Amino acid sequence: MTDQLEGQRMRASVLHGVEHVRVEEREVPTPAADEVLVRIEAVGLCGSDVHYYRHGRIGSFVVEQPMVLGHESAGVVTAVGSDVDPTRVGQRVSIEPQRSCRVCAWCKRGEYNLCPRIEFYATPPIDGSFAEYATIQADFAHPVPDSMSMEAAALLEPLSVGIATARKAGMAPGRSVLIAGCGPIGLICAQVARAYGVTEVVMTDLVPARRERALQLGATEVLDPAAGPLPEARFDAFVDATGALPAVRSGIMATAPGGTVVLVGMGEDDMSLPVGTITSREISVTGIFRYNNTWPTAIALVQAGLVDLDSLVTARYGLDDVVTAIETDTDPGSLKSVIVPGLR
Amino acid sequence: MTDQLEGQRMRASVLHGVEHVRVEEREVPTPAADEVLVRIEAVGLCGSDVHYYRHGRIGSFVVEQPMVLGHESAGVVTAVGSDVDPTRVGQRVSIEPQRSCRVCAWCKRGEYNLCPRIEFYATPPIDGSFAEYATIQADFAHPVPDSMSMEAAALLEPLSVGIATARKAGMAPGRSVLIAGCGPIGLICAQVARAYGVTEVVMTDLVPARRERALQLGATEVLDPAAGPLPEARFDAFVDATGALPAVRSGIMATAPGGTVVLVGMGEDDMSLPVGTITSREISVTGIFRYNNTWPTAIALVQAGLVDLDSLVTARYGLDDVVTAIETDTDPGSLKSVIVPGLR
Amino acid sequence: MTDQLEGQRMRASVLHGVEHVRVEEREVPTPAADEVLVRIEAVGLCGSDVHYYRHGRIGSFVVEQPMVLGHESAGVVTAVGSDVDPTRVGQRVSIEPQRSCRVCAWCKRGEYNLCPRIEFYATPPIDGSFAEYATIQADFAHPVPDSMSMEAAALLEPLSVGIATARKAGMAPGRSVLIAGCGPIGLICAQVARAYGVTEVVMTDLVPARRERALQLGATEVLDPAAGPLPEARFDAFVDATGALPAVRSGIMATAPGGTVVLVGMGEDDMSLPVGTITSREISVTGIFRYNNTWPTAIALVQAGLVDLDSLVTARYGLDDVVTAIETDTDPGSLKSVIVPGLR
Amino acid sequence: MTDQLEGQRMRASVLHGVEHVRVEEREVPTPAADEVLVRIEAVGLCGSDVHYYRHGRIGSFVVEQPMVLGHESAGVVTAVGSDVDPTRVGQRVSIEPQRSCRVCAWCKRGEYNLCPRIEFYATPPIDGSFAEYATIQADFAHPVPDSMSMEAAALLEPLSVGIATARKAGMAPGRSVLIAGCGPIGLICAQVARAYGVTEVVMTDLVPARRERALQLGATEVLDPAAGPLPEARFDAFVDATGALPAVRSGIMATAPGGTVVLVGMGEDDMSLPVGTITSREISVTGIFRYNNTWPTAIALVQAGLVDLDSLVTARYGLDDVVTAIETDTDPGSLKSVIVPGLR
Repeated sequence: MTDQLEGQRMRASVLHGVEHVRVEEREVPTPAADEVLVRIEAVGLCGSDVHYYRHGRIGSFVVEQPMVLGHESAGVVTAVGSDVDPTRVGQRVSIEPQRSCRVCAWCKRGEYNLCPRIEFYATPPIDGSFAEYATIQADFAHPVPDSMSMEAAALLEPLSVGIATARKAGMAPGRSVLIAGCGPIGLICAQVARAYGVTEVVMTDLVPARRERALQLGATEVLDPAAGPLPEARFDAFVDATGALPAVRSGIMATAPGGTVVLVGMGEDDMSLPVGTITSREISVTGIFRYNNTWPTAIALVQAGLVDLDSLVTARYGLDDVVTAIETDTDPGSLKSVIVPGLR
Repeated sequence: MTDQLEGQRMRASVLHGVEHVRVEEREVPTPAADEVLVRIEAVGLCGSDVHYYRHGRIGSFVVEQPMVLGHESAGVVTAVGSDVDPTRVGQRVSIEPQRSCRVCAWCKRGEYNLCPRIEFYATPPIDGSFAEYATIQADFAHPVPDSMSMEAAALLEPLSVGIATARKAGMAPGRSVLIAGCGPIGLICAQVARAYGVTEVVMTDLVPARRERALQLGATEVLDPAAGPLPEARFDAFVDATGALPAVRSGIMATAPGGTVVLVGMGEDDMSLPVGTITSREISVTGIFRYNNTWPTAIALVQAGLVDLDSLVTARYGLDDVVTAIETDTDPGSLKSVIVPGLR
Repeated sequence: MTDQLEGQRMRASVLHGVEHVRVEEREVPTPAADEVLVRIEAVGLCGSDVHYYRHGRIGSFVVEQPMVLGHESAGVVTAVGSDVDPTRVGQRVSIEPQRSCRVCAWCKRGEYNLCPRIEFYATPPIDGSFAEYATIQADFAHPVPDSMSMEAAALLEPLSVGIATARKAGMAPGRSVLIAGCGPIGLICAQVARAYGVTEVVMTDLVPARRERALQLGATEVLDPAAGPLPEARFDAFVDATGALPAVRSGIMATAPGGTVVLVGMGEDDMSLPVGTITSREISVTGIFRYNNTWPTAIALVQAGLVDLDSLVTARYGLDDVVTAIETDTDPGSLKSVIVPGLR
Repeated sequence: MTDQLEGQRMRASVLHGVEHVRVEEREVPTPAADEVLVRIEAVGLCGSDVHYYRHGRIGSFVVEQPMVLGHESAGVVTAVGSDVDPTRVGQRVSIEPQRSCRVCAWCKRGEYNLCPRIEFYATPPIDGSFAEYATIQADFAHPVPDSMSMEAAALLEPLSVGIATARKAGMAPGRSVLIAGCGPIGLICAQVARAYGVTEVVMTDLVPARRERALQLGATEVLDPAAGPLPEARFDAFVDATGALPAVRSGIMATAPGGTVVLVGMGEDDMSLPVGTITSREISVTGIFRYNNTWPTAIALVQAGLVDLDSLVTARYGLDDVVTAIETDTDPGSLKSVIVPGLR
């Protein structure tokens, strides 16, 4: 890095403990030989950020030292490591916020998200991107076209979750999909399902306003799960984007023989599942842990207009207002908040 | 069949030999126990019909006795066999024009199109549907919604070829597809590719007007194969809808490592293929022989507006004008001709 | 059926209610047009037979009228329906004890075991084969070579469960498999795993004698689950052949990221599963509901000596001794009992 | 590398042009940070080595500067790069002789053998291992158990070709396989097929003695292709290990509908294939270009005794006798020659 940033300072929003976030000055990180330094321009606020803020942990991942939150991010390359093409400086990029070992069995067969040594932004103890700068390996800084907004580029990360879900669920024309939960991930999964050619995308949510919004953003039909049981044994795939036990159980019961269930929402570690039904219908139940090899597809879908990420953004906050963003994240009108480090 | 059609006569267009077709009166067929009788309302003219008319054979299939052509058909159920629900009378249906044995290894594992005992409309010696009536097993008479035209219902057959192609080619978002040939099958494959979420559908054709039309009907880009070599090792999938050796060879050379080639167009039995390239890129080359389990998907795609079949129809003819339809099939303005048995 | 059996009587062991089985005389069934009549020579006793005997039900399947138990059967064709090749009379066959509709979406795509209208031997209200004769559709009466014993031919049925399991579990060389439960199904799964090239087949069972036997019949290593926790995140596939919650849970925890869990044993309808682990490791959990397209493979494996079924048989009983067979089924020395209808 | 080998000299057998090989002194290579240095103890002679010797090229790969041949190699780690665990010194390893970029689309999805920037031993301009020492990235130096001979460890490389073939061919119990060519690769493919549970492995070769040997080393049946046509449409998979057009064509004709053809043997760049048959049977034709993720499976198969590599070795030569090894490679009694650099 031949850059003038060496030794400079940047602002970062740091989680110090449960419900304790503050902006600090830190040194701008130096990219390693295979990395780029990115000036962060947009970072989506994710439910996991909120969860770390409120609970200081997610499952076995515990925040034990100060950590920068944020992992849905995009920006501009401002410096490169010694092994990276220097013409990349100035490039607009979306960050795939993980670093894999590249040599284990999982990495070498393409499932690098399952790498036992994976490091992931804003997962203890790895810092995230609620900051003015962040580093990432060069091949995980995906160039985006000029026509794509920085916010859409940031939201390629949750879109990647949707693409990973679509692949696991076998989404394709002629298949029907039930999605529980009309939050950001549910809506993105619905848009992705449509992009994959699924013509029947039924969504459920307890809140009428969220069901209404879903009809505008991807669902072909919405159902109120409180209004009565879902249709039995009817969908080729079920995607849970709630983490709630009743949604998971009723979704499994609504899955057709030979169908697939993909659990995306984070819920309790243990759940009482209808194993008799899973077995007698030969349903396959699995979950999504991040993603691999999704960014090129994500970029293609947004570029082709098959997925609309910009419409999901309902608010923008500067680094000083991360707490406000978190506190209002579940407000009725809120869908996806974006942190803009340069915003004052 | 408790029907008043028993013993009645119908008109049918019969191929008697090379370039020898005439309308005859035949007895209305009687549905077997598991069949329905369909009053034919629309039948697409296929290149294979033209080929049988001109050559009396396709490969090892030789027309040795008078045979009714036509296999892309739709109509209304007018009678049912003894094992079929009688309320199906009056139902609008699209015909999947094949009859499989249901007990061989292929049928039982779902690849019934590969059944060694398959019988297929308008493939010697099985009669097709250029006639006022035809029979088909009840489960191969697929009900279509009222909103679907009879012509679109007939063209679910070539759409099924496109769907079978998409499945073999692994079409999905993020994949790129090259299609050689902008005739009806090429265009349908392009529309299907788009419906499957493919955002890059490049088509080739030697005729400028056909390339132009392709841009309106599914292609995202068109190339003139005479203008220079295609991009090398670039597409995830290549679909040949020409049967022409230069198109097949250049398409294979344009296929990326790990890619898939699907041969849909009928050409010479033997072709000199670039086997060194196929091997060193681990390209998989295969072909399509009809389809299985495609109709529900085809209906869903048309219903959802993801595929437009009505726009492909450029002319309609009565049974008396089948020869005219065949003779003009390759006219520049012609795309898909439909035989309407009731048209006088 | 041109056969002299018409109107003749046969002996059958009939379940009349919980723990109430008696031998009765019934009419020899008449094969339908597409069926064969089989003189039953061997029927394996399955855990599900025992369960119906003890509880009168399995899950939602309730015995509401007298029913013949038994579904692992083989014998000799003694008569054929009108559509069946009459030279099959005299053929030694293994019975695939199910009858599917052949026209639904599942049947037509090859998953006929998931057919909503499936009829299965000894599943209410369909009679099984603890009888002197039984009928089955001709293509589900699989010819076996003369070198195969009738008992092995009968046990192709549980072998089919093992093959279906191996397919779902993705068994192949280089993969490691953990199997919980050293009963007949666990042991068959172990043998099948070895036949599929799996070189590491670890089995668990609480009973030392059963672990010992497993080492002789397929396991490469055995573990006592009471002796401490199983290795964590280690196996590519886990097969549960116990239905017991602790075995299922510890097996899931022992499954590696990206691995597969196949539930074969019947247990409680609801189970508390470690969903957090399933999701964060992207484990796929599914079950087996019988099988499809397994008999040709089963026959090949036995013929090649890759699976040894004869060694599993520990006792033989006549129809009059079905109760004894059931009552002793879980004795320590018992592995697989066979009912031989002709045995007095 | 803190090693005393720095600056030392080694002997290497170098190809200088067509039929021009000589032993030279070269500097012992220095392992890069992520590499190990291996003292080579055994290197199999491959047909591609012979081809480079005779023709100076294979297809588009042309030997334009002196190059060390040999790529089937094993040895002992004698030094490690700065990022590698130093306790690996002394470890017996089998070398996977390729170096991929780890960041392209193919590498990241697990198909690293298709990496456009792949470097492969003894493929111009990369040196191979007919030498006393060679370097390789640490994760491509696979530790082998003490019980495995160095020669078997070297031959894990051609075994990997067989495993890659088995995966592409979908080998599994119940499938039948035809293999053309009873040379080392054909025999290894046959052994692998058996290890994958294939019970019907039919092999062809024009030479009776080679057919005879095949019956001892994996084939369940052998056929003389000159004695008449092969059975038509009969095998689930066909593997060509000859590169000869007649073998490829007759093998395709012998492949059943829905079957798979894997071309392993190197032949002419262009071949006239029966495309009509490929299409009407929906046969999938592909080839093997080296392998990915095969070594752990290869080691497991040899360890379990499912594949016997030692029996393939028919001769051993020192570095000074590489030309003799090449010149006698196609002698009738020769199967696999091994170069032992330490042999004088």
